[in-house]
Amino acid sequence: MINTNNTTEIQNSKTGKTVRESEGETTLVMLPSDANPLGNVFGGIILKHVDLIAGLVAKRHAGHANIVTASMDSMTFAKPVYIGNALILKARINYVKRSSMEVEVNIEAEDLNKSQKVLTGTAYVTLVALDEKGKPIEVPKLILQNIEEEERFLEGENRMQTRLKNREIKKRQKEN
Amino acid sequence: MINTNNTTEIQNSKTGKTVRESEGETTLVMLPSDANPLGNVFGGIILKHVDLIAGLVAKRHAGHANIVTASMDSMTFAKPVYIGNALILKARINYVKRSSMEVEVNIEAEDLNKSQKVLTGTAYVTLVALDEKGKPIEVPKLILQNIEEEERFLEGENRMQTRLKNREIKKRQKEN
Amino acid sequence: MINTNNTTEIQNSKTGKTVRESEGETTLVMLPSDANPLGNVFGGIILKHVDLIAGLVAKRHAGHANIVTASMDSMTFAKPVYIGNALILKARINYVKRSSMEVEVNIEAEDLNKSQKVLTGTAYVTLVALDEKGKPIEVPKLILQNIEEEERFLEGENRMQTRLKNREIKKRQKEN
Amino acid sequence: MINTNNTTEIQNSKTGKTVRESEGETTLVMLPSDANPLGNVFGGIILKHVDLIAGLVAKRHAGHANIVTASMDSMTFAKPVYIGNALILKARINYVKRSSMEVEVNIEAEDLNKSQKVLTGTAYVTLVALDEKGKPIEVPKLILQNIEEEERFLEGENRMQTRLKNREIKKRQKEN
Amino acid sequence: MINTNNTTEIQNSKTGKTVRESEGETTLVMLPSDANPLGNVFGGIILKHVDLIAGLVAKRHAGHANIVTASMDSMTFAKPVYIGNALILKARINYVKRSSMEVEVNIEAEDLNKSQKVLTGTAYVTLVALDEKGKPIEVPKLILQNIEEEERFLEGENRMQTRLKNREIKKRQKEN
Amino acid sequence: MINTNNTTEIQNSKTGKTVRESEGETTLVMLPSDANPLGNVFGGIILKHVDLIAGLVAKRHAGHANIVTASMDSMTFAKPVYIGNALILKARINYVKRSSMEVEVNIEAEDLNKSQKVLTGTAYVTLVALDEKGKPIEVPKLILQNIEEEERFLEGENRMQTRLKNREIKKRQKEN
Repeated sequence: MINTNNTTEIQNSKTGKTVRESEGETTLVMLPSDANPLGNVFGGIILKHVDLIAGLVAKRHAGHANIVTASMDSMTFAKPVYIGNALILKARINYVKRSSMEVEVNIEAEDLNKSQKVLTGTAYVTLVALDEKGKPIEVPKLILQNIEEEERFLEGENRMQTRLKNREIKKRQKEN
Repeated sequence: MINTNNTTEIQNSKTGKTVRESEGETTLVMLPSDANPLGNVFGGIILKHVDLIAGLVAKRHAGHANIVTASMDSMTFAKPVYIGNALILKARINYVKRSSMEVEVNIEAEDLNKSQKVLTGTAYVTLVALDEKGKPIEVPKLILQNIEEEERFLEGENRMQTRLKNREIKKRQKEN
Repeated sequence: MINTNNTTEIQNSKTGKTVRESEGETTLVMLPSDANPLGNVFGGIILKHVDLIAGLVAKRHAGHANIVTASMDSMTFAKPVYIGNALILKARINYVKRSSMEVEVNIEAEDLNKSQKVLTGTAYVTLVALDEKGKPIEVPKLILQNIEEEERFLEGENRMQTRLKNREIKKRQKEN
Repeated sequence: MINTNNTTEIQNSKTGKTVRESEGETTLVMLPSDANPLGNVFGGIILKHVDLIAGLVAKRHAGHANIVTASMDSMTFAKPVYIGNALILKARINYVKRSSMEVEVNIEAEDLNKSQKVLTGTAYVTLVALDEKGKPIEVPKLILQNIEEEERFLEGENRMQTRLKNREIKKRQKEN
Repeated sequence: MINTNNTTEIQNSKTGKTVRESEGETTLVMLPSDANPLGNVFGGIILKHVDLIAGLVAKRHAGHANIVTASMDSMTFAKPVYIGNALILKARINYVKRSSMEVEVNIEAEDLNKSQKVLTGTAYVTLVALDEKGKPIEVPKLILQNIEEEERFLEGENRMQTRLKNREIKKRQKEN
Repeated sequence: MINTNNTTEIQNSKTGKTVRESEGETTLVMLPSDANPLGNVFGGIILKHVDLIAGLVAKRHAGHANIVTASMDSMTFAKPVYIGNALILKARINYVKRSSMEVEVNIEAEDLNKSQKVLTGTAYVTLVALDEKGKPIEVPKLILQNIEEEERFLEGENRMQTRLKNREIKKRQKEN
């Protein structure tokens, strides 16, 4: 629905923010300048927009802080995206811990001639909130409002722990 | 809500399409490259994105046709948009007649530091569906599902008639 | 004619500036990156360049001030513009009142293969001069040098009054 | 002056074209995206626009042919160009021989705050007209209409002969 | 070393290609248009360039085929990259199997004021070679020329098997 | 070879720097947005990238200074570059005198389908190091390490003297 109030103060509870408050969506027509000469959209173009919308959602949750991307989980491009398709990115926060946020981005391609949408991939982006001196600062807690959000929170927590474990393993491999 | 079905055939009734079926939304972080040296986003950058999302919505309604912009109604930029703001464009079809569609685009600027949204303007874009040879072709009728949509349809019809009348007046002025 | 003096102080009378002093022209070859997949140039790309050249002309007239776009009048795209065409924009000030300027932009498309120019539209852009704190500041008066410029000034004044009247009507509609 | 005829067939004499018929001018506000982090516009950005307007002028003269840049003469950047400046490029044909055209581009930077223009450089670009198979094709002769144009034609001829001579010297150096 | 031969036929043995034959390197100065308003380069901009150079290296190995990105492994951004830094991407093939190639991209940021380079991350991109109809086609075998290349090949094989295993697990999770 | 040390302090002798220390290379796939509608890459796009890499190399040599392009020598585009080609630019310093540096950029186009590289041109760019107030400052001396580098230094010195002589001639022509 289109909100036509002139100025809307977004609800900003000090103790936390809901998933809904920071959700973001963007729809972009893929133009000739986004593709290789064969008509496929570069994976890198999609990743650029994924990072932009993930950063927006994290910024909405964190408010005044500066947001940087810390990592992106492995991503599979299930289907190609073509020039003339609409790229639809839907992003929401799954998990928050201190200064870290995990944002999930669902990537759809819509064939505007055939009115068909295809899920081409899902990205998990970890972003960190920093203060002006570049030090991590705590962000609002995530208020979970239904079972789905609670499940995604737990899954996000698991992925975060896997990331930290993998980083530990890599560190040790380098030291040996 | 994020739809995670792998392939979704969008409902495509031959007799018409609802307003909802073609609605579109895009959210774009305004970057240094979108602004003049003083930090304001150019009105022209906003108009470019307005036209892109209006074209997307018209294309969703019209399906296979080629879409061209025929006109844009007068538009006032109520508030400036700054670098770092999110530009949120919400677009929907108001009115359809044969090959012509009126798309309304509501333009909001969101200050991501203060979590405040401001309506900066509303654009009415008229687009036409053409076949491969460039001739206008009829698009699906607009199925109206509530009183608000019916009111917007009538207002769209009025604006369309005003446009046609104004064009007539200009033509005659040139002939004299 | 090409001026080859090394440094030219543009005549800057305190009491006013002529229309000629701020006139601007730009010619841009439309490239694949300016178009949709079907080869038409997006209306939004044209509007972006219209706003840029209108801003330039207003800045030339206003000098030190910061320029923002306040509104754009309704615009009809009479003919499509294609990739490979030259887009020729010619802009000049019609009307000035305190901090407001109306700039007229004539939009031509030139088919470089056939050496044919077509007028595709005319835009009327209203821009406002602001000081460093964002407050409107008065700009130089417009010195009219012939009957055509006087006629355009009066027409500009009429359009300005129509804009203000329409804005009043909309305000009242919202209040009721 | 702004021409408002709806369709203008540009005069196209079979025996030749005047310098005026292909002259081109473009005015571009230099934006943050055109500059290095220190606020100077890259020389390379200027060269890109020089090549684009030179190509446009050559295309106007040659009509249906495909235009490629063959060489650019040595160029000195006399003064820096800054973000917020207007870059004004004025281009015209000096010399034509069979399929080759020399286009002169005068580069000015305008400080829009101070209303001052500075000539920052002059470029001589040689372009060649090719048919669809990539073979050079003859372009219309250049009709000279005053002494200045005749002088520039002779100077262009001299530069062309110097270019050919220098290329010969380089070739021989490589063979030895 | 700079090779100045006019035309070089790159060695193209039918039975395979070495790692060296397809290696690629790109160095890009990060400009204001690559960053958020705070001066950090977006992670997404880096990912775009990573994908472009990975695609180039895969294309060099595969020759005539069309190249698409199938997946990108999880990636950590160890250090921020700033405007004015040089982004240096060095890419090479680690592993080849039928139509699939794993390309490793090492990402360095160079502070050009301090002459300091920092490794900011390493990306593993999987790309697939397709024929004109979009079907996978076999690419040349990878000729390994030293122990380091052999080790990287084995590590690439391990990562590929992990990817396939993870995809299986996800599939089953969806089915249950 | 790919260097995987985490932080590398580049050798920075106060008395001078070698040619190797500042050498740069960039490889860019030419995309639809880099070309005219006929598929040739604009000469101007190539010149933009030549200037960027020359600036990078000069900046590497000069360290903290601000770098501006002073001139570009005459350049011939020997062969066209097409969409889908890789553009390979290899740049190194030939000659240094006080605040001036001559950078040579070799331009190759690689047909990725046929695995063929072609030298399309060589550019000589002169850049100057400036301090924060815009005054020229001395850069490190160039340490020459082999006969080839010594020969290129002498050739660079010759070209520099020719440039200065030509500038003198032009000055006098203007005065007469």
